[in-house]
Amino acid sequence: MSGVYGKVTPEVVAELRQKIGDRNVVYEDRDALENYACDTAGVIFAHNPDAVVKPENAEQVSAVMETASRYRVPVTPRGAGSGLAGAAIPVKGGIVLSIEKMNRILEIDPVNRVAVVEPGVVTNDLCKAAAEKGFLYAGYPMSTETSFIGGNVGTNAGGGKVIRYGSTRRHVLGLEVVLPSGAVVQLGGKFRKDTWGYSLLQLMVGSEGTLGVITKVIVNLEPLPGRTVNLLAAYPDLDTMVSTVAKVVQSGTRVISCEFFDRFATKVTTDYVGTPLPYQDRTEAYLLIQIEGNNDDEIEAAYEKVGKICEAQGAFEVFVAESRIDSQMIWNVRQNLAEGMRAYDPYCSLSGDVVVPLSAVPSMIKTINRLAEKWRVPVGNCGHIADGNIHPLAAKPDGMPPEEWGEYAEQFFHEMIEEAVKLGGVGSGEHGVGFLKLPTLLSTKTPEERRIHRAIKLAFDPLEIMNPGKLVQGE
Amino acid sequence: MSGVYGKVTPEVVAELRQKIGDRNVVYEDRDALENYACDTAGVIFAHNPDAVVKPENAEQVSAVMETASRYRVPVTPRGAGSGLAGAAIPVKGGIVLSIEKMNRILEIDPVNRVAVVEPGVVTNDLCKAAAEKGFLYAGYPMSTETSFIGGNVGTNAGGGKVIRYGSTRRHVLGLEVVLPSGAVVQLGGKFRKDTWGYSLLQLMVGSEGTLGVITKVIVNLEPLPGRTVNLLAAYPDLDTMVSTVAKVVQSGTRVISCEFFDRFATKVTTDYVGTPLPYQDRTEAYLLIQIEGNNDDEIEAAYEKVGKICEAQGAFEVFVAESRIDSQMIWNVRQNLAEGMRAYDPYCSLSGDVVVPLSAVPSMIKTINRLAEKWRVPVGNCGHIADGNIHPLAAKPDGMPPEEWGEYAEQFFHEMIEEAVKLGGVGSGEHGVGFLKLPTLLSTKTPEERRIHRAIKLAFDPLEIMNPGKLVQGE
Repeated sequence: MSGVYGKVTPEVVAELRQKIGDRNVVYEDRDALENYACDTAGVIFAHNPDAVVKPENAEQVSAVMETASRYRVPVTPRGAGSGLAGAAIPVKGGIVLSIEKMNRILEIDPVNRVAVVEPGVVTNDLCKAAAEKGFLYAGYPMSTETSFIGGNVGTNAGGGKVIRYGSTRRHVLGLEVVLPSGAVVQLGGKFRKDTWGYSLLQLMVGSEGTLGVITKVIVNLEPLPGRTVNLLAAYPDLDTMVSTVAKVVQSGTRVISCEFFDRFATKVTTDYVGTPLPYQDRTEAYLLIQIEGNNDDEIEAAYEKVGKICEAQGAFEVFVAESRIDSQMIWNVRQNLAEGMRAYDPYCSLSGDVVVPLSAVPSMIKTINRLAEKWRVPVGNCGHIADGNIHPLAAKPDGMPPEEWGEYAEQFFHEMIEEAVKLGGVGSGEHGVGFLKLPTLLSTKTPEERRIHRAIKLAFDPLEIMNPGKLVQGE
Repeated sequence: MSGVYGKVTPEVVAELRQKIGDRNVVYEDRDALENYACDTAGVIFAHNPDAVVKPENAEQVSAVMETASRYRVPVTPRGAGSGLAGAAIPVKGGIVLSIEKMNRILEIDPVNRVAVVEPGVVTNDLCKAAAEKGFLYAGYPMSTETSFIGGNVGTNAGGGKVIRYGSTRRHVLGLEVVLPSGAVVQLGGKFRKDTWGYSLLQLMVGSEGTLGVITKVIVNLEPLPGRTVNLLAAYPDLDTMVSTVAKVVQSGTRVISCEFFDRFATKVTTDYVGTPLPYQDRTEAYLLIQIEGNNDDEIEAAYEKVGKICEAQGAFEVFVAESRIDSQMIWNVRQNLAEGMRAYDPYCSLSGDVVVPLSAVPSMIKTINRLAEKWRVPVGNCGHIADGNIHPLAAKPDGMPPEEWGEYAEQFFHEMIEEAVKLGGVGSGEHGVGFLKLPTLLSTKTPEERRIHRAIKLAFDPLEIMNPGKLVQGE
């Protein structure tokens, strides 16, 4: 479809207010609109919406989409704003559709082992509600305390337990989606097997709000895990740390997490949280491994086995955190790495998210560090290393004017992603593409893939009103 | 695209022979062509191809597709012919593209825990090769001895271990696909996290050869399971059997399989295999449960726990098969149910494959039995009950002329699927849609979904040469 987008005129706003109520429409209130202008990638990428709507249910979402279609006004769905790729930023202006008021846990269904939730539920709230009924919701993005389930689905969120439980994709059994036309479709359901036509459900996961608005999510629940123990292994160099990972994963122990962080990331984060890690002065890289066992004997056998592997591969110390306090101390560092880097440099809001085969991780980390030197970008590396998913946290080079940093950083990450692709990987494992990585996405796909991506987009959204400027080449 | 398909003329055949070699093209040999005319749904649904090609690699597949595109000749990809929905049957004539010569296991990669295989590898051969290196390939369709990996991916095959490991979708990390245009694309890779544009990989899984030809598959490998034990619980009625399932799944034991079969299915199958099951004269339904444990103590604790649940829910006997011979005896019945029904009636080649939420299984089984009575169709029920996936095996009514049976059966299954959808389920969990269930698929989807399905089809295959007449509404 060619042509220009419609404007959010007073006429459009009046129609929206009439349909979903004054209280659910924000317009002309500059301060209120600014709250919806950026995500966690930072204010340097802000774009103000012309209006914000906060529908309370699928019917209201449908009503908004019907109006937006008729006036051809862009609609950008927004979850908690915890994204890191700009997917929720209204780069073409128009309406931001915030799902914040659709935040009810509708059902924890023990017989079918599912939860049915609205998309604005905070991930951790779902985890708690499931745990109260004796179940685990196994999605665990590092932003679990803030991110919404709807956003998790939109980005196919990963996090710290993917090695054991898989990404969000694996947990989504059903979706209710309002299409750009306003039509409501039900995809999947309270069941685990489905080969009944093309999987529109799977296509929606990771589509970053470009195909429709998710208004209900049915997720799989797992049994609660047994006891866990956390090991922190300290390494004199990155290579010996990486060599441990494959051996640990194949050791037959039930590994739930396998995270790493390097010297620089550790330094700024422990400065920030105020608690140093054991052996920090001698350590180039830490490996944080969480293991599950049914009972004390299993736990002990598991951590002895894994500890021996770590030492055999070159760890000079392995710290076993059996107590809750010790475990929290370690995980507190892991969970605060991004905040630690931002405390070091307020412009450190950008993180790489490359994924490569595990065998290519050493090459990838070396490449990242080489590029960091070449581009003079201070980088703290961390990530879900057993998944091959590395997060280089990039700070602004000393002395660079802030207004130059956004584009500079994008070019830095562009080159990094090209290297990841050469190593058999991709440019994002869990953060998504948004608009920040769109040029890189396009340059790493073949013309046929780009053509198919665009045709899929148009199949759902012929007017291209749904989160335009994201994930696919625009008109 | 409107217009008619091109014919497989001697000119087309000459071009194919020139491109991929005489030995890889079958033409005018009626007997040889007939071998590619039907699948396991039976000869009553046979359609002869005009030619069969047996390319040896992706380049040859690409060459075939290039010719087929130019002449607009239909191409139907075919695996082992073990499908049950007619997906591999060339209903519009043209070329059958058999993947039988692309049957190499290219790599078992222990560091990245993946296998790289060609699509014509027999599932069980992959399982064996993985086991030799200490890994489990966790896909396990009941046709594991015959089906090809490529077909497993095409139908998102399920089978007897989905409750533990998920369907084939979960195990596919990468695909090489030849698009209808002849272009080759690489989707995914040797990694487990990917949010890098719409997931064409996930879209290919379950697309039944309508979007492209799979020429390489990268699958996830799991650690080998521990010891297993099989329990056979005999029930006086279906309700008590079904009530056991949710409790067993939630019991905290590691359930690998949870299968059921009813009196009639058991009777014909034990007649066929020649070995009765324990307590068979008194049993209305059996539950076959496989549990995993790390050692003898765990195994014993698990089967005692599960056995008690079975008895508390109403099983009058629980038989614990600890030995290999006893386990084989039980699984032999499960694996021969379809053959047993065919021995009872050679026209019993059709099986339902409905999926409903576990909570709706009792209603679904009652509905199936009610419909069986209404339509006078002898039905033996079995299935992967913990997944809510039920296979009613339908025999031809006494005295019905065989030529009437195909259409009659389709109508019978159509009504059954409509009931499954009313119960919150879908029409297929693992067999797929093919052409046999296409009218039912279309009637259970909304107009918006049908439109999107068709647009996705055209995004990949604008000339509609790829397995036409399947899965989506044709032109």
